[in-house]
Amino acid sequence: MTPAADEHAVEVLKGLLDANDHEALHNREHFERHNVLAVNLMSSPGAGKTALLEATIEALGKDLNIAVVEGDLETENDAERIRAKGVPAIQITTGSACHLDAHMVHDALHELELDDVDVLFIENVGNLVCPASFDLGQHINVALLSTPEGDDKPAKYPVMFRAADLVLVTKSDLLEVLGDFSPDAAERCVRQIANPAPVLKVSAKTGLGMDGWLDWIRREAGSRE
Amino acid sequence: MTPAADEHAVEVLKGLLDANDHEALHNREHFERHNVLAVNLMSSPGAGKTALLEATIEALGKDLNIAVVEGDLETENDAERIRAKGVPAIQITTGSACHLDAHMVHDALHELELDDVDVLFIENVGNLVCPASFDLGQHINVALLSTPEGDDKPAKYPVMFRAADLVLVTKSDLLEVLGDFSPDAAERCVRQIANPAPVLKVSAKTGLGMDGWLDWIRREAGSRE
Repeated sequence: MTPAADEHAVEVLKGLLDANDHEALHNREHFERHNVLAVNLMSSPGAGKTALLEATIEALGKDLNIAVVEGDLETENDAERIRAKGVPAIQITTGSACHLDAHMVHDALHELELDDVDVLFIENVGNLVCPASFDLGQHINVALLSTPEGDDKPAKYPVMFRAADLVLVTKSDLLEVLGDFSPDAAERCVRQIANPAPVLKVSAKTGLGMDGWLDWIRREAGSRE
Repeated sequence: MTPAADEHAVEVLKGLLDANDHEALHNREHFERHNVLAVNLMSSPGAGKTALLEATIEALGKDLNIAVVEGDLETENDAERIRAKGVPAIQITTGSACHLDAHMVHDALHELELDDVDVLFIENVGNLVCPASFDLGQHINVALLSTPEGDDKPAKYPVMFRAADLVLVTKSDLLEVLGDFSPDAAERCVRQIANPAPVLKVSAKTGLGMDGWLDWIRREAGSRE
């Protein structure tokens, strides 16, 4: 590529991001109009986003109306797991696209009855890099850090962890087995990238620490009423 | 975005990929000229790529001259771990870029004495999506699937697992603790996307299954002499 062609590519990519931001603003208007709290869940593949949602629906489903938008390259598996909990779930399959964008989420919103929704969880594509750069119109970003991934990941993936309003250390039932993940070290990494977000240990499998997460969601949902 | 602008963006992205393929061809010529086997390691964040390399260098370092190119968004941590094993390592920090491209690898090659290298491992950015779409000039793609991520990941990330010449199920010392990862199910997922690649269970921590991986590398390196 020549420098001129390079510059041109940067301009086109900037145009795509601008178009996304414009659509994200539109999504945010939808959420405000219908009093919906929108939460964007992001993590590596297999960090436990769907398991967290299953446990969250079980615990809060009676008090709050929950809906889910699922992002995956392929398969309807995650949406089916959520529907089995009695909650509406719209699956977006992105093909080879590495993140959800605001247009995809907008299309999904039109398949939901937003008046009947208090909290909308958007489960992003499993990817600790790209999703952080695309605003979907959400109110809150939650980044999951799975204990087997290692406590150094906030330092190695700073764009994601800088964007997080809350960090959940998932699969923390494995802390003792693994022996080499320090929740304090993970939290220090988050502070070193100048993010004051809470860092909570949870396990959807054993219920460990789930109260803190559930209280947090209840509080955020309550503040929007 | 208008449809015309969309089309234009697709064209520009195609141009970037074409430029990458051209540079990858150039990298491949470097490898051929110097008789280097180039192996591209790809996985989610924290699936154990660096730990695998550390164990591989310990086992093969006396028989084969190994060098490593490390891709990370931030930090020199991984290159330092490799250098501590007495092997040259070039760190590429990509900033916010979600994958290595052929140009970055080309720049790194010029910092290595390729005549003194038998096997070059390229540790890609931790990301189970984007790296699969960018040819670096490597001979072999190895995809790591960490057991805590779940055995369904080859179905959910088919672009990556279709591109793999070898799949390593890493952290397999955790299989018993986790109880819900079936190596057979993971292999079935790989077959369902029409990939006949071997699927090997390994643990860099306990040494479990490492002989199969080490033999495979020895064979591939030998076939290039």
